[in-house]
Amino acid sequence: MNTIILTGDRPSGSLHIGHYVGSLKDRVKLQEKGEMFVLIADIQAMTDNFDNPKLLKESSYEVLLDYLSVGINPMKSNIFLQSEIPELYELFTYFLNLISIHKLQHNPTIKTELNQKNFKTGLPLGFLAYPISQASDILAFKPTYVPVGADQIPVIEVTNDIVNKFNSIYAAEVFEKINPQLSDCPKLVGTDGLKKMSKSLGNAIYLKDSPDTIIRKIRKMRSDPEHIYIENPGKLEGNTVFEYLDIFYHDKENLLKLKNHYTKGGLSDGKIKDILAETLIEYLRPIRERREKLQKDRSYLNSVLRNGRERAREVTSKTLSEVRNAIGLASSQE
Amino acid sequence: MNTIILTGDRPSGSLHIGHYVGSLKDRVKLQEKGEMFVLIADIQAMTDNFDNPKLLKESSYEVLLDYLSVGINPMKSNIFLQSEIPELYELFTYFLNLISIHKLQHNPTIKTELNQKNFKTGLPLGFLAYPISQASDILAFKPTYVPVGADQIPVIEVTNDIVNKFNSIYAAEVFEKINPQLSDCPKLVGTDGLKKMSKSLGNAIYLKDSPDTIIRKIRKMRSDPEHIYIENPGKLEGNTVFEYLDIFYHDKENLLKLKNHYTKGGLSDGKIKDILAETLIEYLRPIRERREKLQKDRSYLNSVLRNGRERAREVTSKTLSEVRNAIGLASSQE
Repeated sequence: MNTIILTGDRPSGSLHIGHYVGSLKDRVKLQEKGEMFVLIADIQAMTDNFDNPKLLKESSYEVLLDYLSVGINPMKSNIFLQSEIPELYELFTYFLNLISIHKLQHNPTIKTELNQKNFKTGLPLGFLAYPISQASDILAFKPTYVPVGADQIPVIEVTNDIVNKFNSIYAAEVFEKINPQLSDCPKLVGTDGLKKMSKSLGNAIYLKDSPDTIIRKIRKMRSDPEHIYIENPGKLEGNTVFEYLDIFYHDKENLLKLKNHYTKGGLSDGKIKDILAETLIEYLRPIRERREKLQKDRSYLNSVLRNGRERAREVTSKTLSEVRNAIGLASSQE
Repeated sequence: MNTIILTGDRPSGSLHIGHYVGSLKDRVKLQEKGEMFVLIADIQAMTDNFDNPKLLKESSYEVLLDYLSVGINPMKSNIFLQSEIPELYELFTYFLNLISIHKLQHNPTIKTELNQKNFKTGLPLGFLAYPISQASDILAFKPTYVPVGADQIPVIEVTNDIVNKFNSIYAAEVFEKINPQLSDCPKLVGTDGLKKMSKSLGNAIYLKDSPDTIIRKIRKMRSDPEHIYIENPGKLEGNTVFEYLDIFYHDKENLLKLKNHYTKGGLSDGKIKDILAETLIEYLRPIRERREKLQKDRSYLNSVLRNGRERAREVTSKTLSEVRNAIGLASSQE
């Protein structure tokens, strides 16, 4: 059996270094191990951004640029827009009959998200149904490898409920249970040092950030708030600057020296922030340079999406025929 | 502006004479007044029959045969399967974001239906979403004329909610408010004389019923239960046999004589039932004969559905592009 890898992101902004260390870097390696499908989940993003479609359009291209800049290779991986795969809408419609409202309303991930959101005119059906949309995205590709974050596990359970129900109601073996692969990549804390890096918390450094922006964000980064005088010892625990250096600074020997100096006293927070800024600027330079070059070429970007779409539809239309055969609706094509 | 007429039925069995007098007869006339689209709503029928897809397949062809037999002319009208129009799935997905769960749960039509149904494992999302599926079917065709029954009015209000929300959120004028035309056709009571004719109540005479079946059903029909002795006067009120004769018996003068005779006494219930049976058998003969001929020709039936599909997709894909433009998602085709 071929290895099929399914990953993707909701386009609700461009991607940050938290995405990079937590998943993108891993995908660049994964694309060597099988056929990878990378979904820009604009239809899912609509479920809580339906009143802000401009954001979705811009973000779809931002996310695509991020993918290409970090090294997801369109000659190896299929990058496509969810909204451009008609088969996904149809699968979604069939799957809607298999899951109860009660079950979704009691799903832990959905419950958490509902507490964070504020739908002004009541909870729209589309939002409650997003795990079913996600299930369609996953199952359409029959992937053998689905890397996910721990917070997404309950949503994957909805996918497996659908697998069980579909196969049993339609006496078919169209789908197999999905075993999501929990990422062992580090979760990057935000520049505030308090929470996971996230756009909505305003604590993110983006892959596209300019050197100036990086310097500015790192100057405000949490280090050791009690380290007022340079000559005093500084603390490493809870020191976000050193957390980042652990990840991005390559000369581990020199890093140890810096840590010793800092904890003994005599190394200023300004100095370690300068070192981190320089490190990150260098780390992101090739990504930023590729991004700047690619972003001028919308017609190339669209050709990447068109190729991805074509291959994605080859796979999803095959799954859809199996689904239609299993259900056995009338067909004028017979 | 061209007149576009949108009608249809859920395929959950073949159609009966209640459908005929209440709507099909009217459609045969309507097809002369504009372009008619007749939707076999198999996706909607799945929302409460998803676990019985065989019924849906058979019923889709039954309903098609009924349409053609009563005189819906595929040279004038477009008859098609809802499931074969990909644009409808996509519109449906967009519209799901515009209506809240609360609103649907408090819709009078849905509330009544939920009380009648018994979903064993909780209310599936698909069923609650069917008014949104119906809204997609309607709006995709931008119809100028939508004939509906009174019980469907609250569901049409969901369609108009979507029109308002879509146009306002996406600052577009893609859709116009739908003004449903309430049918002035009579509602036919069932053979039990108690309720509207309906498959689920087992009180229906089908367009395809054989003469023997018609005779058998009419023998059991409610007439005047207190009319025990032929020589006694019989009552016309609540007498289903005479209700049917009023609709199907063409010689109004003779019908008046029969009524006089019955109310004076001396005319048996068996006799008037025989007259009704003969009347209905004759009335349905041309329909039944066309039906018998057509049902052997599955390849003709499929060609009707393919032609209907082609024309339906011409219209729905135009609407879908307008919708996509209004929303403004990313597009690799640009």
